[in-house]
Amino acid sequence: MSKSGTMPGMFEFQIQARDGRARVAQFHTPRGAVTTPMFMPVGTQGTVKGISPQELLDIGSQMILGNTYHLMLRPGEALVQAHGGLPGFTAYPGPFLTDSGGFQVMSLGHMRKITEEGVTFKSHIDGSAVQLTPERSVAVQEALGADIIMAFDECPPYPAERDYIQRSLERTERWLARCLKAKTRPEQALFAIVQGGVHQDLREQSLELTLPYDTPGFALGGLAVGEPKEEMYPAVAFTADRLPAHKPRYLMGVGHPEDLVAGIALGVDMFDCVYPTRTGRFGYALTDDGRLNLNASAPRQQLMPLDSECDCYACRQYTRAYLAHLVRAEEMLGPRMLSLHNLRYLHRLVERARVAIEAGEFHSWATGWAERYFKGQIPAWFQKTLSLNAHEA
Amino acid sequence: MSKSGTMPGMFEFQIQARDGRARVAQFHTPRGAVTTPMFMPVGTQGTVKGISPQELLDIGSQMILGNTYHLMLRPGEALVQAHGGLPGFTAYPGPFLTDSGGFQVMSLGHMRKITEEGVTFKSHIDGSAVQLTPERSVAVQEALGADIIMAFDECPPYPAERDYIQRSLERTERWLARCLKAKTRPEQALFAIVQGGVHQDLREQSLELTLPYDTPGFALGGLAVGEPKEEMYPAVAFTADRLPAHKPRYLMGVGHPEDLVAGIALGVDMFDCVYPTRTGRFGYALTDDGRLNLNASAPRQQLMPLDSECDCYACRQYTRAYLAHLVRAEEMLGPRMLSLHNLRYLHRLVERARVAIEAGEFHSWATGWAERYFKGQIPAWFQKTLSLNAHEA
Repeated sequence: MSKSGTMPGMFEFQIQARDGRARVAQFHTPRGAVTTPMFMPVGTQGTVKGISPQELLDIGSQMILGNTYHLMLRPGEALVQAHGGLPGFTAYPGPFLTDSGGFQVMSLGHMRKITEEGVTFKSHIDGSAVQLTPERSVAVQEALGADIIMAFDECPPYPAERDYIQRSLERTERWLARCLKAKTRPEQALFAIVQGGVHQDLREQSLELTLPYDTPGFALGGLAVGEPKEEMYPAVAFTADRLPAHKPRYLMGVGHPEDLVAGIALGVDMFDCVYPTRTGRFGYALTDDGRLNLNASAPRQQLMPLDSECDCYACRQYTRAYLAHLVRAEEMLGPRMLSLHNLRYLHRLVERARVAIEAGEFHSWATGWAERYFKGQIPAWFQKTLSLNAHEA
Repeated sequence: MSKSGTMPGMFEFQIQARDGRARVAQFHTPRGAVTTPMFMPVGTQGTVKGISPQELLDIGSQMILGNTYHLMLRPGEALVQAHGGLPGFTAYPGPFLTDSGGFQVMSLGHMRKITEEGVTFKSHIDGSAVQLTPERSVAVQEALGADIIMAFDECPPYPAERDYIQRSLERTERWLARCLKAKTRPEQALFAIVQGGVHQDLREQSLELTLPYDTPGFALGGLAVGEPKEEMYPAVAFTADRLPAHKPRYLMGVGHPEDLVAGIALGVDMFDCVYPTRTGRFGYALTDDGRLNLNASAPRQQLMPLDSECDCYACRQYTRAYLAHLVRAEEMLGPRMLSLHNLRYLHRLVERARVAIEAGEFHSWATGWAERYFKGQIPAWFQKTLSLNAHEA
């Protein structure tokens, strides 16, 4: 077993094509290989909201994210373990990734207290006091049984004091060591998380502390927490560039379509976000022409599909008028179909990015996509991010 | 064209097996033949709540009900017609049945006024005044484009004055004449509705007034509106027995599993009810052992399927513990899966009834089913209804 507590060769990351910093790879996991770049739908409470496992497979999902914080509180990890882990519990047969619970616990604000030992917080369900430590996070994640588990880290909010970010990233490294010590299951890969906010020197310090652990993959943490894109993407570029080329890079909690294209340009391989399902429940559909608002009056009379280029069930079966009717009538099938379409949109987006990378045409594809998506007004941060793609690592 | 305004032969009802009063038949419609007895899922606002058309086909649905009242108010029948009717709008390719809007308008209570001309009511959506008449109901139903449309009738509440029921059933006959006069589309069958409450002599009078119209099917109306089962089933028995044997009989707004078995015993062929989807949204699952409450604590630890004899997606994929978790966590997949299972349960129930009828074993099958369902305490009304099955019409 390697020092990261994983069976050697079990989580191989085989790069198949490169185009600037962007790359396409096969990432092997015990529950099958996935192709990156990939977007992971979020199944917070053991279900991607409104969507069945069969539908996830149909739209090309490859790996599903589960939330340690929610699942440990309800139904409790023991029940999930009694089902043989998340695949048995949720009936999604493919690979899973679980977060550590850290980010969500930190988000509780005044309801939680952070010490060197871990975090104490009040359950949002019954108000009881709960403690989450690196050891407990790993134990819960082992019971949940995902293929990829995440280090228990501290994710400072934005903005935060430099000193605080620095103390926090140092503690995150000590917690990483405790996580790896607590880890017992070699068929699970634990990814370390690089912190440091948007400060290049702090990112550098976090990298120096984290890379020696040689985990099977690394996450870019502490980003997409409220900072402007102009500050976020230089930090992504700097960090991704210094992560090992032959291991997957995961940009946590990201994102919108433009974030996926920008992240891929910088060599990010894995993404997750509740955005496609959440915006779907609010009546919005993602398309290459931007976000379509089905709460508005125009779609109510449009007999065309949501997105004529999409192959999802909603786009093959329904008109905008019908879906807008469902949204207006508050019918459950509306959020269900919009969530399905939005997930498929993000899967198709990364699939098209992969094709462009394989053809050595990522930059022109991404520029063409952005011209249409931003209606000719490509933001400076996006343009600058794309231009960084050409500078090979 | 016949006097019922229908192409002759288009709605043929071919009886294939009889067992006492119960029968199995093929009922032909322009969008395909269906096998009766059948249960029709209700798609009030152009969607069976939470369920996709593909899922309806997968679980053996044959005909879907649409509500004229809801659809005329929102999105309006013109938009449905612009989609080629309900099949184009909802993407369910099979046969449809629409109600006349009458029952739902009557249910508005003090918000509506009934005259010989029709009913004036306030829209529940925007409070505007709307008039529904026999002519308007037929026009809306022609735009909605179902295969089976229903006569605009008056359905008195329970209890109601005898005199009122009598005046009302006479007006219902005049409205039936106006509906048939207004009807223009020969590829739609209009079913007349027999009223008369639970009074045998008034049922008799309604039958005398209605049967001469010789419509391609007849509905038993004015029942399941709050009267005790002890009064309802004798009225069903009396009415069904006097309807033409070679035409489908539709018991509107019914029902629960025990109602389907009882209705089939009396020669009813078609049923519809929101019960399976509504009770599913409330966290209940229908089984041969009665209704399972997933809000209770016991199912949270049960690693068995909802119903081990069911072949639906929810029963094949999930444990009770997982589904109970979804219900408790208020996850959309919970009501979706329980609705799917409950619809499949009713479809399987009528499928089993058909097999029993074909084998000449309906009475013993129904008795065995009821022994288990009622946990050995079969109610007198059910036993009496089953005993009537033996008395052939």
